[in-house]
Amino acid sequence: MKSRILSKIHSPADVKQCSQAELLSLAKELREFIIDIVATKEGHLGASLGVVELTVALHYVFNTPDDQLIWDVGHQAYGHKILTGRRDLFHTNRKLNGISGFPKRAESIYDAFGVGHSSTSISAALGMAIAAQLDRNFERQHIAVIGDASIAAGMAFEGLNHAGVTNANLLVILNDNAIGIDPSVGALKNYLTKAKVGFKPRQSNMIEALNFNYKGPIDGHDLPALVEALNELKQQKGPRFLHVITKKGKGLQKAEEDQVTYHSPGKFDKSTGEIIAKSNENLPPKYQDVFGLTLVELAEKNPKIIGITPAMPTGSSLKYMMQRFPERAFDVGIAEQHAVTFAAGLATQNYVVFCAIYSTFLQRAMDQVIHDVAIQNLPVIFCIDRAGLVGNDGATHHGVFDIALLKSIPNIMIAAPSNEIELRNLLYTVSKGVSQPIAIRYPRGRGSIIDWQQDFEAIELGKFQQLKKGNRIAIISLGTMRGNVEKAIEALGKNEKAVAHYAVRFIKPFQTGFFESLFNEYKCIITVEDGSIKGGFGEDVSAFAQKEFYHGKVINLGIPDVFIEHGSPDELYDLVGLSAAKIAKVIEENL
Amino acid sequence: MKSRILSKIHSPADVKQCSQAELLSLAKELREFIIDIVATKEGHLGASLGVVELTVALHYVFNTPDDQLIWDVGHQAYGHKILTGRRDLFHTNRKLNGISGFPKRAESIYDAFGVGHSSTSISAALGMAIAAQLDRNFERQHIAVIGDASIAAGMAFEGLNHAGVTNANLLVILNDNAIGIDPSVGALKNYLTKAKVGFKPRQSNMIEALNFNYKGPIDGHDLPALVEALNELKQQKGPRFLHVITKKGKGLQKAEEDQVTYHSPGKFDKSTGEIIAKSNENLPPKYQDVFGLTLVELAEKNPKIIGITPAMPTGSSLKYMMQRFPERAFDVGIAEQHAVTFAAGLATQNYVVFCAIYSTFLQRAMDQVIHDVAIQNLPVIFCIDRAGLVGNDGATHHGVFDIALLKSIPNIMIAAPSNEIELRNLLYTVSKGVSQPIAIRYPRGRGSIIDWQQDFEAIELGKFQQLKKGNRIAIISLGTMRGNVEKAIEALGKNEKAVAHYAVRFIKPFQTGFFESLFNEYKCIITVEDGSIKGGFGEDVSAFAQKEFYHGKVINLGIPDVFIEHGSPDELYDLVGLSAAKIAKVIEENL
Repeated sequence: MKSRILSKIHSPADVKQCSQAELLSLAKELREFIIDIVATKEGHLGASLGVVELTVALHYVFNTPDDQLIWDVGHQAYGHKILTGRRDLFHTNRKLNGISGFPKRAESIYDAFGVGHSSTSISAALGMAIAAQLDRNFERQHIAVIGDASIAAGMAFEGLNHAGVTNANLLVILNDNAIGIDPSVGALKNYLTKAKVGFKPRQSNMIEALNFNYKGPIDGHDLPALVEALNELKQQKGPRFLHVITKKGKGLQKAEEDQVTYHSPGKFDKSTGEIIAKSNENLPPKYQDVFGLTLVELAEKNPKIIGITPAMPTGSSLKYMMQRFPERAFDVGIAEQHAVTFAAGLATQNYVVFCAIYSTFLQRAMDQVIHDVAIQNLPVIFCIDRAGLVGNDGATHHGVFDIALLKSIPNIMIAAPSNEIELRNLLYTVSKGVSQPIAIRYPRGRGSIIDWQQDFEAIELGKFQQLKKGNRIAIISLGTMRGNVEKAIEALGKNEKAVAHYAVRFIKPFQTGFFESLFNEYKCIITVEDGSIKGGFGEDVSAFAQKEFYHGKVINLGIPDVFIEHGSPDELYDLVGLSAAKIAKVIEENL
Repeated sequence: MKSRILSKIHSPADVKQCSQAELLSLAKELREFIIDIVATKEGHLGASLGVVELTVALHYVFNTPDDQLIWDVGHQAYGHKILTGRRDLFHTNRKLNGISGFPKRAESIYDAFGVGHSSTSISAALGMAIAAQLDRNFERQHIAVIGDASIAAGMAFEGLNHAGVTNANLLVILNDNAIGIDPSVGALKNYLTKAKVGFKPRQSNMIEALNFNYKGPIDGHDLPALVEALNELKQQKGPRFLHVITKKGKGLQKAEEDQVTYHSPGKFDKSTGEIIAKSNENLPPKYQDVFGLTLVELAEKNPKIIGITPAMPTGSSLKYMMQRFPERAFDVGIAEQHAVTFAAGLATQNYVVFCAIYSTFLQRAMDQVIHDVAIQNLPVIFCIDRAGLVGNDGATHHGVFDIALLKSIPNIMIAAPSNEIELRNLLYTVSKGVSQPIAIRYPRGRGSIIDWQQDFEAIELGKFQQLKKGNRIAIISLGTMRGNVEKAIEALGKNEKAVAHYAVRFIKPFQTGFFESLFNEYKCIITVEDGSIKGGFGEDVSAFAQKEFYHGKVINLGIPDVFIEHGSPDELYDLVGLSAAKIAKVIEENL
């Protein structure tokens, strides 16, 4: 593909010079450029393809970076990045030291607000718009582009509810494609679907009820119509709302047909769209599948089992239970707060509720975990996926705070199974009912055991496991850090005899007796966790050692107190000192 | 007042036996009973007075406790408690070992779901309703009673959005009195106000847009009308919505006239409603006023200063700035998530943003603190009111987790000024601009310094202060625990010479050099904090001591790893070992 216009676009100023015909060509080339790069470099595809025309129109009509343009979530911002000076860096997208997969303030003045999690754009844009008002700047425009899945989250409603009583210069653009990562759900989605057929004049318009000036719905792939609508809205005052209908994956037939897979398809053939198949044969399972498939097995036996996901049926693999037991498995949309309290409500009625939430998104529901679950000691089972460093999604998505956030909450048990079989058996064990809330954390990606679907065995709740004997140093690995520690020990050669290895498996309650015996036996204890050191599990061990007057050395390995950027998980774990090689080095230094 | 019918009501079964005339008398007596007790025992008044008729009607029409009745927030549930077997205990309301001021599962089978924070009722009731559906129990009713301030929070919208696509047996009753603790705000409130005049048929009904069967608005003080409406709704299927208009404080003229004050008026004359004035002369200030009044002084000088509160203008004392600078002070409603990201948006535009949130409600916005503020290192100033044990509101409201929740977040500075003057000077210091987010925590209630409005003095950010020399034990007090520690030291008599006292003032960054010098000087270090020990500041000190091979003793005093119930702050601080007497005992044991 030869880029004729796109290659001349170095900033939005160049977009503004385009004729109408050139804009159409630019959109075409931009779409091809995205497909071209993502086909080999991987990344999020469908969302950006769906807003190519909108992206071109926004940069044509508005005066970025003076005008503040915020892309909600940010999966859809590749076109924006390419048009704002990052075309030639785009092949480094999501790679270590490359550009971020999301808008990021530190990366570009065109990225008005960093995103990654959903539904923040209206609040942030409103803050900027109020600032402009106070500055008596009545020219600057503030635009939040938000999807129909994201606008259904409570936080977005809070933003709309506030904006509607201001006269802030705010334009909310609803990018309505009826899908987030998985298909959108909820009453608002149904309502919007009806709206596409056309509101009857002045009837039942929720957006107008919130005091926004509503325009639409319009075809988001009709570039001239978009330009006209945006130019019109630019002239208006106060909060206004443009409803744009788009198709996720637009322009690549396969991506249009299978929008869930092509949200982030991996490598594919850029001309046919065919995904370049990776052989999954003889690969160990993804942890999410250990959860999702095991839950189906358990639900077959126990009719009291419920599964809940806030908008991640595919990512969490709850989809398997949704297919098998649609009555007992719920995708509640991007609504982590509701998901947790809904789970609590079910738990009061003696249901065995598995609430699957990514570590990073559990941050959205901390109050509900404390106030609705833990205070009432309701036995909700939190399955915390994507714990640890997640890799290329970067700082906004790493699951490194859950231990620190949950640790201080009374009543809750916190577990970190050390491999797929332990996760499976722990799910089995708690499926028979527990007497308190429990959080089970496990990482993104694949485990190490191909033959993981063994017969169920109960796990003693709250108890560590000794994996290897040794006489001088004890390594305590948390969760799946077990694997890296095992490799580190192997690398020690004959020194490995000095090193004992324990999988702690349960972070809370703290295993007092176990650690007392370690203090008696070893001169050095090394804790290894894929969570923040600050406030983490290792700090518990150090603090307890101090209390017990342990005079040996306690070393806490984990994620340091900085935000970790994007890169492959292996690169990042090495960067923070948690690769097998780096762990081995620490062991050797202390032998 | 002589109670004729109320005294015969031992459970809702007795309510059901009442004639229509008796129901009216019961409502009258119930209102008088609440006024009578709250006048002398104190508590929340206005909310419960506003729903007397609704409470009687609900227990008359529905079959509690089989039917699940959830009171959102729970301030309004006094009548419910009195009618469900707790009439004779009601004088112990909010007292240590007495009944809770909120519905609480452990207290009564009639309290279907524990509350305290707002906007949880729809999610919880939906969970119960889905459970009933799965149980093929088509008789059981599920009722969420929610106020117009609470329903505007994002979480409530998430619940409605999910409920609208189910056919769950759910009745949401909107108790619309146009006020929360302070007057309701937002576009939805304006919309509901219009609705009171009457929707035009089928026009613009947001609730119907979410697929609820809407009924109303009806007069919430018309008991026969309520009974009729509830009986009608009971027969219907699926999600339905009753819009009830009430007056907060109904039946006590003063409470109707000044709804903010009479939300929780303290002692008052039960016949006139006159508040029994406490002399505030020569009393030290409330911490909230140190914040609120100082902020006005600072905002006079610096036009870039912004104040934000999520629905607590009175409680946080942001009302002073709202009165003086209405353009720069924002009550965004019950919307902690939005409040934080709105603050972040303003901070990107070089405004100096003070975001005042109670410690317990900050739990609602942890993700926004991490994702929208800390990752971008935006210099938002969080003023965390009600940190520590808050007293009679109990477990749902204590501010004991903020340190543990914030500690692991990179970039954020955490401060705990040790008295009013330090809080004032810290606000002054950061008002000149900071280069990172900062959280400043301070307690509920009054300080100790009457003459607190001194000239401003800058505080060195990040630095402890030595308050007293000593040679054997060092006490490190966090924030206003300083006062109790000072009293404890005084109580030691001649032993006090052995005890040094430091105010740590800044929790994060951790003051490495300071603690190294302490380890060299003292054989014993005692940390004292009004937050959770688990994950708290003291654990940092213990863990660091272990790293530094400190062979002395480190004792961490703080809130133990259980939920603390209600009682007066003095009683509760003594209970957890943080009263001056209890601290003195620990010191003596270690001298």
